[in-house]
Amino acid sequence: MILSATEFEEQGVTFPGGFKTSGVRTGLKSAGPDVALIVSDEPCPVAGVFTTNQVKASCVTWSQRVVALGRAQAIFVNAGNANACNGPQGDRDTETMATLVSRNLNIPSNRVLIASTGVIGHLMPMEKIAAGVPKAVTTLEQSPKADVIAAKAIMTTDLRQKMAAIEFQSDNWLGPIRFGGMCKGSGMIAPNMATMLCFVTTDAALPQGLLQTALVRAIEKTFNRITVDGDTSTNDMTLVMASGKSSIDIESEGPAFEDFVSALQTICLNLAKLVVRDGEGATKLAQVTVKGTQSEADAVKIARTIAESPLVKTALFGSDPNWGRIMMAAGRAGIPFDFNLTDVFIGSTIVFERGTGVPFDRDACSDYLKQEEISLTVDLHSGDASADIWTCDFSYDYVKINAEYHT
Amino acid sequence: MILSATEFEEQGVTFPGGFKTSGVRTGLKSAGPDVALIVSDEPCPVAGVFTTNQVKASCVTWSQRVVALGRAQAIFVNAGNANACNGPQGDRDTETMATLVSRNLNIPSNRVLIASTGVIGHLMPMEKIAAGVPKAVTTLEQSPKADVIAAKAIMTTDLRQKMAAIEFQSDNWLGPIRFGGMCKGSGMIAPNMATMLCFVTTDAALPQGLLQTALVRAIEKTFNRITVDGDTSTNDMTLVMASGKSSIDIESEGPAFEDFVSALQTICLNLAKLVVRDGEGATKLAQVTVKGTQSEADAVKIARTIAESPLVKTALFGSDPNWGRIMMAAGRAGIPFDFNLTDVFIGSTIVFERGTGVPFDRDACSDYLKQEEISLTVDLHSGDASADIWTCDFSYDYVKINAEYHT
Repeated sequence: MILSATEFEEQGVTFPGGFKTSGVRTGLKSAGPDVALIVSDEPCPVAGVFTTNQVKASCVTWSQRVVALGRAQAIFVNAGNANACNGPQGDRDTETMATLVSRNLNIPSNRVLIASTGVIGHLMPMEKIAAGVPKAVTTLEQSPKADVIAAKAIMTTDLRQKMAAIEFQSDNWLGPIRFGGMCKGSGMIAPNMATMLCFVTTDAALPQGLLQTALVRAIEKTFNRITVDGDTSTNDMTLVMASGKSSIDIESEGPAFEDFVSALQTICLNLAKLVVRDGEGATKLAQVTVKGTQSEADAVKIARTIAESPLVKTALFGSDPNWGRIMMAAGRAGIPFDFNLTDVFIGSTIVFERGTGVPFDRDACSDYLKQEEISLTVDLHSGDASADIWTCDFSYDYVKINAEYHT
Repeated sequence: MILSATEFEEQGVTFPGGFKTSGVRTGLKSAGPDVALIVSDEPCPVAGVFTTNQVKASCVTWSQRVVALGRAQAIFVNAGNANACNGPQGDRDTETMATLVSRNLNIPSNRVLIASTGVIGHLMPMEKIAAGVPKAVTTLEQSPKADVIAAKAIMTTDLRQKMAAIEFQSDNWLGPIRFGGMCKGSGMIAPNMATMLCFVTTDAALPQGLLQTALVRAIEKTFNRITVDGDTSTNDMTLVMASGKSSIDIESEGPAFEDFVSALQTICLNLAKLVVRDGEGATKLAQVTVKGTQSEADAVKIARTIAESPLVKTALFGSDPNWGRIMMAAGRAGIPFDFNLTDVFIGSTIVFERGTGVPFDRDACSDYLKQEEISLTVDLHSGDASADIWTCDFSYDYVKINAEYHT
């Protein structure tokens, strides 16, 4: 059982022992650092989850191959250019990026993971990458300051860097395990995969197979349960590296592993919520809970339909306690249910009970919806399963950001 | 074969012989007529397609029962109140509405179809309905002027009334057949059903079973292929009444019936495009064509995913020739394809060819996208099937309209 989870502010991927990071400016973005590097002291087990989009960027196919080998030592990330849909030249450029990193670090290139984010369909300016890699390597360090610069480097339309650092204790472990992480993403956030770039480090020691299993399970209940606009990018990936520096060994499935999954899920959920909260144009974070369904899958499907409905999301922006739109969205999710058994809550206020609207204090409810974190709950009273989905509201700024972010 | 289709401007549901209509003000909306009535001289075959939403308004369950009986004589429509999620009282109110109409027209109440649109979860102000019905009955007439008032009466957030009137000639018919129609809907437009209120009249003579078959087939390629925001309302329905006044009999399936389906499809497509063009906040109508797929269903799924992508829709608003977003959306539709075989066209300009962006005149392409009607084409080069979906762009005003349209 997890006994404690202590969060550390302003720390990230080098919070667990065994990792260094850096962020440098190469000119790929109009301002600020735009290339990040994470390096482990030794080759270590790596797990990855990648976009399910049919259109995959060169970095995705490259990094999938590295993960399939089981061990890695570096993650090189660039923002400002997605290197997607660039044909064979794009693939060659990704390979060259890995080669540049491998030479500067003196490690094999098949131990170098590559992640790119930014505009689609422009060839990568390789001279900038070539100039940036040595700088990224020479500035590597293990420090909160480096964590912040790296987290800033991977931002595109993000307004804030997104980091997490948590130390967990469990009665099934001989000592604490640390996790650090950073992620980016504020649009093109969709439910069916890693949904953006996310890099997690841990000092736990465990075989690659278990690490992959843990990541898939953690993603399923975290990054796969957030939505900003339902769109899935060509470049999304989540990678986890486990340095083993804690000397806490997790050798097989069992209670110690279950606690590891739970801890990984916690840090992924922290990072995922940062993504939603920073969703393009978002002014608030909403947790949509659907309960009383016959299966968790049903609850997920209904909650996701509510969470992605533009009409629900604009009502949230307008702080309008519009349960009609919530019920409309629930009803079109494709899951049969009897709406005459259904209740809807906005926060803790019941607004719809057993098929009919009920009187409630509209002003108080609208004030509640003006908060930065809100919750909506739909109870179908037809079973014991439930699920949560996190979403944000849909504002003028979402349209502005996406209409003006030109190719 | 259809030989000609002559469109008549500013005419609607009484364009075919055998129908009268009216629109009156009862105070359900803040201004203008808000109740419409369509009456056929005699009971006649009726067909209907209704919302697939699990949450159905009282008018939907009522009208489904009337359609199941096969014949109807009146359609009573109110805007301003959806009478949805109002529990047993809502059901009783719908029945009372039918009874009021039936008494004033001296026809059985099970020949009266009811359609309501507007806000969800407010009880119908029955005293307004009771006052409005006699006025609607006494003002019934067969005239273009009445068609316009009726079409205005069913509007909610619509900016324009939506009507169509077409006379068709076919070498399989002994004479012309006329169709008239009106519809409403600008938000909550979704692909999986009738998607709004639509009423079509025709002077053809055909049995109810054939009329229903024709309607289902026509809807599938028209109203089920448009999208504004992917949301499906609780009240959506499309109804068709066939007066038989033309004396053109269509007794069974065959060439004459196929032409009838084709004609019905034409008027439905005209009306459906009016809905998209008037989509909430829409500034342009976009036809998304996907071709070269192995099945039409695959093409529909990919085209719909592109057409519903908020990132594509905001790019259209910004007149940005952003093929990256089009490919991203195509790739997440869940249909496997090889993007290295894929071409993308904006209008007639190829912008992406066999997996890679190609040089094109960005300014000319952006100018093209500033037009009111535009087309996007994705060719997968993997088969012979294709499909079209119609959508609109996503503007500031969509957010404004939906954040401010309070319950």
